[in-house]
Amino acid sequence: MSNNFADRLTDGIRSKGAPIAVGLDPQYGRLPVAIREDKEFNDELDTEAAIDAIFEFSTKVLRIIAPHVPAVKMNIAFFEKYYSEGIEAYYSLIEEADNLGLEVIGDVKRADIPSSNEAYAQAHLANPEYTDMEDLLTPDAITLNPYFGIEALNPFVKICREQGKGIFVVVRSSNPEASAIQEIVDAEGKKVYERIAEQVASIADDAELVGVNGYSSVGAVVGASDAEAASRLREIMPKSIFLVPGYGAQGGGADAIKACFKDGAGAIVTASRSIIYAYERDEYKEASSWEQAVEQAVADMKTQINQMINAK
Amino acid sequence: MSNNFADRLTDGIRSKGAPIAVGLDPQYGRLPVAIREDKEFNDELDTEAAIDAIFEFSTKVLRIIAPHVPAVKMNIAFFEKYYSEGIEAYYSLIEEADNLGLEVIGDVKRADIPSSNEAYAQAHLANPEYTDMEDLLTPDAITLNPYFGIEALNPFVKICREQGKGIFVVVRSSNPEASAIQEIVDAEGKKVYERIAEQVASIADDAELVGVNGYSSVGAVVGASDAEAASRLREIMPKSIFLVPGYGAQGGGADAIKACFKDGAGAIVTASRSIIYAYERDEYKEASSWEQAVEQAVADMKTQINQMINAK
Repeated sequence: MSNNFADRLTDGIRSKGAPIAVGLDPQYGRLPVAIREDKEFNDELDTEAAIDAIFEFSTKVLRIIAPHVPAVKMNIAFFEKYYSEGIEAYYSLIEEADNLGLEVIGDVKRADIPSSNEAYAQAHLANPEYTDMEDLLTPDAITLNPYFGIEALNPFVKICREQGKGIFVVVRSSNPEASAIQEIVDAEGKKVYERIAEQVASIADDAELVGVNGYSSVGAVVGASDAEAASRLREIMPKSIFLVPGYGAQGGGADAIKACFKDGAGAIVTASRSIIYAYERDEYKEASSWEQAVEQAVADMKTQINQMINAK
Repeated sequence: MSNNFADRLTDGIRSKGAPIAVGLDPQYGRLPVAIREDKEFNDELDTEAAIDAIFEFSTKVLRIIAPHVPAVKMNIAFFEKYYSEGIEAYYSLIEEADNLGLEVIGDVKRADIPSSNEAYAQAHLANPEYTDMEDLLTPDAITLNPYFGIEALNPFVKICREQGKGIFVVVRSSNPEASAIQEIVDAEGKKVYERIAEQVASIADDAELVGVNGYSSVGAVVGASDAEAASRLREIMPKSIFLVPGYGAQGGGADAIKACFKDGAGAIVTASRSIIYAYERDEYKEASSWEQAVEQAVADMKTQINQMINAK
């Protein structure tokens, strides 16, 4: 297996025919009744019962999706809410996902000044340096926030270079509240997210980070809410893989998703709630089980995304 | 005790005569030899030994500083690097600090889209809603990142209102790399950090958040690297308490620190490494113990900050 994250991810996308990362944002209240009722304490307010149920659900979801998609995006917020035990479950699920051959993207959105980023890089991206934690696995890539400056993210970039890991810097997020900062326009008419994109492009274009497939292990989060913005960002960051939220629950449009790709490659679309809670959706009410609903939703998303990319 | 965070913090600053929050960024390699040698495994690469030593050091530091300062700022990055066990230590230390009467600021720098922010608010700011975690304590306030938009931070603001907690939004950070984004100038000549400050001011000025002392539980992180910038931000955000990094290791100037205050109030300066590792500093080489060096460094900082604030 390649020691370049961008190569591993693009190879995975190609071999599965699916530029899709399923997002794992497990919430106890939305788990299938079958799983909640099976627990000794059917009680959302008991952390042990909740984590138990979330772990069982998540491992099943991973097994369902692994044959169909190359990657899973795990949102750490939904594990942090269970404190240290939630974090234990988070790292255990990374191991499960890795065993299934999935690339794991830790959706951690971290950033601080460089000395703190070193500690965060150790926590979330670097291979453990502790002798008693040798077996613990960290994600293959993580998401990062640009507000402390792209250069402040160097401790993470260093791990990408040295350990074949990846990062996705949030350039343009998919939530409407973000425009108040990300769309501020500078004196030359450039938006803040374009300025960030230029900086991401400049660190991404580095021989030690760019793989044989032509993509860099320094990628970008680009929301699929505006086709024009996506095309512009695609031009500014030619070597970065786009991690594209905004499909499904967040409502991304087909044109905007297509615009994140370059000749059908270089992007991976994420969907979280619309897939993992597919059994709540009307179109999957007829499924024979919640598992079948999830599997069908992944298959349908794969078809839809490929249609979008290939549309004239 | 007041159920408004801003009141609790400003009362604490007044009663201790110290607008200071000591930053706890524990790093095993810098701990006093006396503590490291005392451990069963004197081994930085053994998480159990490292956390043990960090916990012992941190509880001692908390006891030393508690009589002198109103607050401690705990940087979660240095706990996350020890995975779930580090997080367990983080929450235990919050309890220790609370028992000592300190306000606890969790330096977590979180932010994401609103649905994820709800989970982060549950993890880091809200009182636990789990029946088996009733005794766990979360911080009194946390730091947040503005890049997803100030309005996206509403789940945290809601907890401030309902549970008497606080937030500090990073407006202008103290690291030089940040200027590439925070100092982008818009078409009207305003910098990005000023635009963020305006948005922070608009949510801070809310009757449910402003305490009897006139300050809001929605504060701002304002680095002390530029007096002019600090004065301008002081004007834009009259009701926000400024959490001011950049003293000590990060080298903040006296003028810039003074400019963060309004009539000697409304700000709290943080110092981390220069205090907790005071025993490494030449001026404290004569101290009879590492504990005495730390205590003297806090006392000296208190004198210096008060001189800065009161300087003509």
